[in-house]
Amino acid sequence: MYIIVVGAGQIGSQVLDLATASDNEVVVVEQDPEVAEEASREYDCLVIEGDATDREILEDAGAEQADAIICTTDEDATNLMVLFIAKELEISSLVTVVQDPQHLNIFRRVGATILENPQRLIAQYLYQAIQRPSVEDFMELGGDAEIFEVTVTENAAIAGKTLSEAGSESLLGEDVLVVALQRGEEIVTPRGSTRIEAGDTVTVFAREGMTDDLVELFVGEQEVAE
Amino acid sequence: MYIIVVGAGQIGSQVLDLATASDNEVVVVEQDPEVAEEASREYDCLVIEGDATDREILEDAGAEQADAIICTTDEDATNLMVLFIAKELEISSLVTVVQDPQHLNIFRRVGATILENPQRLIAQYLYQAIQRPSVEDFMELGGDAEIFEVTVTENAAIAGKTLSEAGSESLLGEDVLVVALQRGEEIVTPRGSTRIEAGDTVTVFAREGMTDDLVELFVGEQEVAE
Amino acid sequence: MYIIVVGAGQIGSQVLDLATASDNEVVVVEQDPEVAEEASREYDCLVIEGDATDREILEDAGAEQADAIICTTDEDATNLMVLFIAKELEISSLVTVVQDPQHLNIFRRVGATILENPQRLIAQYLYQAIQRPSVEDFMELGGDAEIFEVTVTENAAIAGKTLSEAGSESLLGEDVLVVALQRGEEIVTPRGSTRIEAGDTVTVFAREGMTDDLVELFVGEQEVAE
Amino acid sequence: MYIIVVGAGQIGSQVLDLATASDNEVVVVEQDPEVAEEASREYDCLVIEGDATDREILEDAGAEQADAIICTTDEDATNLMVLFIAKELEISSLVTVVQDPQHLNIFRRVGATILENPQRLIAQYLYQAIQRPSVEDFMELGGDAEIFEVTVTENAAIAGKTLSEAGSESLLGEDVLVVALQRGEEIVTPRGSTRIEAGDTVTVFAREGMTDDLVELFVGEQEVAE
Amino acid sequence: MYIIVVGAGQIGSQVLDLATASDNEVVVVEQDPEVAEEASREYDCLVIEGDATDREILEDAGAEQADAIICTTDEDATNLMVLFIAKELEISSLVTVVQDPQHLNIFRRVGATILENPQRLIAQYLYQAIQRPSVEDFMELGGDAEIFEVTVTENAAIAGKTLSEAGSESLLGEDVLVVALQRGEEIVTPRGSTRIEAGDTVTVFAREGMTDDLVELFVGEQEVAE
Amino acid sequence: MYIIVVGAGQIGSQVLDLATASDNEVVVVEQDPEVAEEASREYDCLVIEGDATDREILEDAGAEQADAIICTTDEDATNLMVLFIAKELEISSLVTVVQDPQHLNIFRRVGATILENPQRLIAQYLYQAIQRPSVEDFMELGGDAEIFEVTVTENAAIAGKTLSEAGSESLLGEDVLVVALQRGEEIVTPRGSTRIEAGDTVTVFAREGMTDDLVELFVGEQEVAE
Amino acid sequence: MYIIVVGAGQIGSQVLDLATASDNEVVVVEQDPEVAEEASREYDCLVIEGDATDREILEDAGAEQADAIICTTDEDATNLMVLFIAKELEISSLVTVVQDPQHLNIFRRVGATILENPQRLIAQYLYQAIQRPSVEDFMELGGDAEIFEVTVTENAAIAGKTLSEAGSESLLGEDVLVVALQRGEEIVTPRGSTRIEAGDTVTVFAREGMTDDLVELFVGEQEVAE
Amino acid sequence: MYIIVVGAGQIGSQVLDLATASDNEVVVVEQDPEVAEEASREYDCLVIEGDATDREILEDAGAEQADAIICTTDEDATNLMVLFIAKELEISSLVTVVQDPQHLNIFRRVGATILENPQRLIAQYLYQAIQRPSVEDFMELGGDAEIFEVTVTENAAIAGKTLSEAGSESLLGEDVLVVALQRGEEIVTPRGSTRIEAGDTVTVFAREGMTDDLVELFVGEQEVAE
Repeated sequence: MYIIVVGAGQIGSQVLDLATASDNEVVVVEQDPEVAEEASREYDCLVIEGDATDREILEDAGAEQADAIICTTDEDATNLMVLFIAKELEISSLVTVVQDPQHLNIFRRVGATILENPQRLIAQYLYQAIQRPSVEDFMELGGDAEIFEVTVTENAAIAGKTLSEAGSESLLGEDVLVVALQRGEEIVTPRGSTRIEAGDTVTVFAREGMTDDLVELFVGEQEVAE
Repeated sequence: MYIIVVGAGQIGSQVLDLATASDNEVVVVEQDPEVAEEASREYDCLVIEGDATDREILEDAGAEQADAIICTTDEDATNLMVLFIAKELEISSLVTVVQDPQHLNIFRRVGATILENPQRLIAQYLYQAIQRPSVEDFMELGGDAEIFEVTVTENAAIAGKTLSEAGSESLLGEDVLVVALQRGEEIVTPRGSTRIEAGDTVTVFAREGMTDDLVELFVGEQEVAE
Repeated sequence: MYIIVVGAGQIGSQVLDLATASDNEVVVVEQDPEVAEEASREYDCLVIEGDATDREILEDAGAEQADAIICTTDEDATNLMVLFIAKELEISSLVTVVQDPQHLNIFRRVGATILENPQRLIAQYLYQAIQRPSVEDFMELGGDAEIFEVTVTENAAIAGKTLSEAGSESLLGEDVLVVALQRGEEIVTPRGSTRIEAGDTVTVFAREGMTDDLVELFVGEQEVAE
Repeated sequence: MYIIVVGAGQIGSQVLDLATASDNEVVVVEQDPEVAEEASREYDCLVIEGDATDREILEDAGAEQADAIICTTDEDATNLMVLFIAKELEISSLVTVVQDPQHLNIFRRVGATILENPQRLIAQYLYQAIQRPSVEDFMELGGDAEIFEVTVTENAAIAGKTLSEAGSESLLGEDVLVVALQRGEEIVTPRGSTRIEAGDTVTVFAREGMTDDLVELFVGEQEVAE
Repeated sequence: MYIIVVGAGQIGSQVLDLATASDNEVVVVEQDPEVAEEASREYDCLVIEGDATDREILEDAGAEQADAIICTTDEDATNLMVLFIAKELEISSLVTVVQDPQHLNIFRRVGATILENPQRLIAQYLYQAIQRPSVEDFMELGGDAEIFEVTVTENAAIAGKTLSEAGSESLLGEDVLVVALQRGEEIVTPRGSTRIEAGDTVTVFAREGMTDDLVELFVGEQEVAE
Repeated sequence: MYIIVVGAGQIGSQVLDLATASDNEVVVVEQDPEVAEEASREYDCLVIEGDATDREILEDAGAEQADAIICTTDEDATNLMVLFIAKELEISSLVTVVQDPQHLNIFRRVGATILENPQRLIAQYLYQAIQRPSVEDFMELGGDAEIFEVTVTENAAIAGKTLSEAGSESLLGEDVLVVALQRGEEIVTPRGSTRIEAGDTVTVFAREGMTDDLVELFVGEQEVAE
Repeated sequence: MYIIVVGAGQIGSQVLDLATASDNEVVVVEQDPEVAEEASREYDCLVIEGDATDREILEDAGAEQADAIICTTDEDATNLMVLFIAKELEISSLVTVVQDPQHLNIFRRVGATILENPQRLIAQYLYQAIQRPSVEDFMELGGDAEIFEVTVTENAAIAGKTLSEAGSESLLGEDVLVVALQRGEEIVTPRGSTRIEAGDTVTVFAREGMTDDLVELFVGEQEVAE
Repeated sequence: MYIIVVGAGQIGSQVLDLATASDNEVVVVEQDPEVAEEASREYDCLVIEGDATDREILEDAGAEQADAIICTTDEDATNLMVLFIAKELEISSLVTVVQDPQHLNIFRRVGATILENPQRLIAQYLYQAIQRPSVEDFMELGGDAEIFEVTVTENAAIAGKTLSEAGSESLLGEDVLVVALQRGEEIVTPRGSTRIEAGDTVTVFAREGMTDDLVELFVGEQEVAE
């Protein structure tokens, strides 16, 4: 793919790192000379120092053959203008971060794929880390449903039981599904006869979300501040 | 919970937004007077303007009764020093972002829960948006296993089939599990008889990760740039 | 009218001066505190210090009752974002300056009335002043047609002749029309019998534009640098 | 012509663009090194970095052979000093912008052609765009007289009528003259038999200025905010 | 007298010190807020913070009743503009420093009393101090004529002689005149019989200027570097 | 002479101009790189960029062979330190400006020749220019005695009279002496028979200082503001 | 004592901390407003914001009753000027840091007690810490003589021996004297019968300085990098 | 030894001066380009411009072969992070300054040799200089014990007496020991028969610290401010 990245700041440079690792042709447009120079030193990509809201700069960046553009600046107005020009130049895949939620509709009208307020994404992880320290990763689905990952402890109620046992003892209800189970390096597809052991990392689907009781089932009673 | 947040920048202020929304007591320590003042205006929390590596500042922030501290500055050295003092002050839950992967071991030694390079997390989402535009969310498990969310299209091979049919036609192998299915507002726990329809948003566990073929099964053949 | 002016810089403050002179309600949004304060001191209008790309700021400025918005910042990206929000807020009259001609189509799509590159407008006047120093004002029409204003000199060929005489002597062709004539304070509507005299300021329509010969007819031969 | 431009800022650079497009020899004097360098890159002219109030700098700029000097800085005091030196160096055509109207007399005493407060010129266009959105261009003559350009709408009273009919129906009085009429690409010199049609762009001389009634005659009744 | 001083910098503040010591009404106009404030604290005068090239500022400073204006800024362009406005406001006595000698004619045309390049005046005193360390003060007249002040030393040829003796011994020629003689606190008007003694401070008029020989006559032979 | 100048600012550069004009070897020490570079471009002297309070810098400047050092910086503390080092390095002639009169004793103890507060010198000239506009130059002697220079006007009481006549008519008292008289380019040594004519520039010694009456004798009654 | 401290920077503020802890009256003069304000907040002393080279500032600081002045700025020139004024004001005890060793003589001439280049003092401690890590503190006397402090290790040759034994075994020569010995909290005055034990901290006078062999006697053979 | 110095500021550069004087291999890491460049010019060592908290920078500095690292920055957090990385890289000797005493425990845990708040060390010397001006150097031992150095004055009670006499006259108690005595260039090991003379510099161990009486014994009664 031919990808144009707009902005080589903290987020932009990580995108460069990912995009240049695969077999893409990558061009980055960055206005700040020092930041541009550092990007040039660090990543195997073409760096264009300039203002991406200047149509000629985008053309220099090869907009005509680009498959995708990713806007990473923290100025919504800049990202918006760039996306408009990118659309005129017929770049098919438009991706952007959006800082201010009230600007979402405007960006949607351009047809861009949006990552709303990336800082919030990070904040959720940090906040989760103190709220449910035992949960290692999680993903929100529609409604209240969530998928989460925990490592089973010795004093967990479920430790040492098969999934069938856990079901018949009403430890696991209908709305909960153990999706995957990692033991050491191996990923096990769980069946009724699979026995959950302390130290297993389990991935759990919870239709009603990860409640305290549900998490406790896997990690035992935790000392938690109120 | 009594939570101390260090830094009220882009990430820190989002943490404040989350933490003050629930029933927590929240104190933020921020060195930059302007940033501190803005935090004070925006969030319902105590704002202390000062350097969190100064033990007295942390004490003023109520470290003695704090349950958790979240370090959000982009200076690893600052976060490290703060965590050390926090540990001396016996704050039990220590959470931090870490910019430089080479510092991870040092932070682990302090016993902190770490969110490594948050900007990379964002970059992954952005990059994924152009690589697999149909994938709406995803989570990496151990090994190659991944869970992902897509919306089924009309020309998807699986559209109109029950999960049993999909299994018997070898569309879905052993290593793939449809974990959940959202139709309109409703979350359906999928069974063999559940019929996948165009417009459903499905959550899929893939033991070998989301390959092009697997994604195509749900969203049909996409015109993709090489 | 209720008018929101965005930007109180050199152009914005002149707009404020004009708009507050008539019976309008005027609000200006300006990000720079010092500029905002000066506007507040100078003009009889409400001054809101803030970023007009923030929807709440525009709402504070009374966007819901505003009849018109005039964007005067020299950042096209800012003006574009503001116009989009203004449109969402259903302000009916959208006016803006546009710096970069390549952005014109994007602005047109928003439905704004555009004043393209205002600095060029000024430059034309300055350049005209040395190219045709005798021309006092001018306006470009479609094609090559122009209207211009000159003051007739004593040694002009037309001085002392009636318009009829000038026509019959082939001084004035079909494509030229003396539209108006100012003598002292009085504006005369010219007829065939009107005699052009030295000192008269005449407004001339020239279908083929103001050629050297045509201008010379009214101001005599000028010493001009090559 | 040999032209010296003082200042290569926003206005100055537009003057450079115009002056270098024709067959002139152009020199620009600019004090700010970065602005000077950019002018040097953009325009085909000699750029002298320095203070134009330094007589030697003006001499280096070729003042002795210059036909004209155009001062575009936004410091009246600088422009004044430059004009005085230019006069001593016997540059015949002196042109300048003047910011502060109270300085006009002083500049007139030097004998310069003056463009008073250029930002106001722009503001007038912007303000006119919301006051009379149907008027596309205009020029002020002596007294109240104005010339303006509008495009005739379908529901205009004059649409479909010849100029004679309009006169005999008292739609057009003595003080109004349709000077020119553009239909498609063609400019028509209007006569009594010329029929005004919707879509025509007409140039109108109005001895008493463009009143609401007069404009309405050509564009019909407009929904206008009060 | 009513005096307006423009600029309260190093020179301006000394002028304020002198002017406020006598029975004058003094107003100073200074643009820099800090400098203005300091002037306000130090001197018994009205301080107006603002740009003196703004006519209204000068009017606020009481230009209409002012007898004199003294421009002390180190920007010739500023001083020039101020003097022009001062002239329009009919201040009768116009005084200014001028930095660049090439601007002298322009300032003379305004009718100002000029102190050309004051830094040079100082430099002359400093340089004189090493060239002729024994000369305590001096003044240049027309041609080569100079007046200077020295203190007579013991080994001076003239020490112990009356002026008559000095004349008859051809020590003092026709072109030299001892104008005054200070002995202790007393000023003596010298006559032929006045005896010059070591320690006297004499003021000498020298038609051909102060030559080494002449100075040596009063101070003896000095050890001087070449 | 071998002269070291400390500081190449406004005063220092004028000293350089004077010192390099004669046949001296001149070295200047200047800390500010830009100022140093400009001095290097303008004057025919060695420029050392550095801090003159650093003994090695002074040695590099050739302190061992220097006859004189002139300190022109506006920091008394810097000048003092430099003079101390210069004395250690046995430079025989030490000259300096001193800003703060309260530091005079300290500088005198070093044995330096002092030009106290040079800005005051300038201020005196400026102030004199409005107090006695007819006085062209002046010099203060001991006591109240002054020497001054004026140009005789037509309506002066003394115009047309010989010095003898002026004496016998009691126009000139004992305490006043016409020291010199310039007529055109010629300097005349005045005698009793010398006739003062309008247009003559006379140099006058006044034992009691230049009173209004005395000045009026030479320039007639002037219209003077009170 | 009444003490004036000049400069409230890193060193100055530590002096304030010490001086205000005892029963002194302390005044500090600091030019930087922020630093002054912080000193005012932290220490119980009078803080005067201003330039200590201004005699009036020193007088305001109570120079007339002051017993001592301590100059802590890192500008030698400033410290010198302050000391001169302090001497004029008859402050009896003058103390200062001196940065540049070449300025020592000048400061000595003022009669000040000097702490030469304090940063070097620190550097010596740091460097010593890697050169002889076992030496805990040290003091240089005249010649090569040094006093140092080490803690005796188990494998030291002297451990377990009385001083007499150590002497008779020629472990301790004539030129070495164990001055003091700390065991636990107690300081023991060592005599011949005093037995040195591992864990004792001994203070040793070494006439020829602390050689490797001597140090090794007390701390055993250390693994040392070359 | 192979030594890495972190920071080339005031303290760091002094360490460089010491470390490069002996036969060490020295590398300095400094973030500020200008400071780095100056270090490079002044000292014979490798200078690496960069952030020492970046592990790769420390590796570039040769951490693998380094025997010691000395942290001299004034940011405790930076020093801490560097020490942690240095420990991971197995540098055996870790030395650092610590600004904030409350951070001492944290640094001790890393196992670093610490120089606590170096500015305080300097302050103690300065303060001592006014408290006991006669004490030339001193060292604090455990408890109240101190060693100090004074020069004996003529009117000291001990002057002219042998140590035995001083002991028997109860001038010197048990708790006081004259450790060394410098007469001219020579260091004398004092015995009972050694006679103390005015002008000798004596080093004294005082178990109870240097009291006024004890110091007075050696320097006589001093005039001291209260």
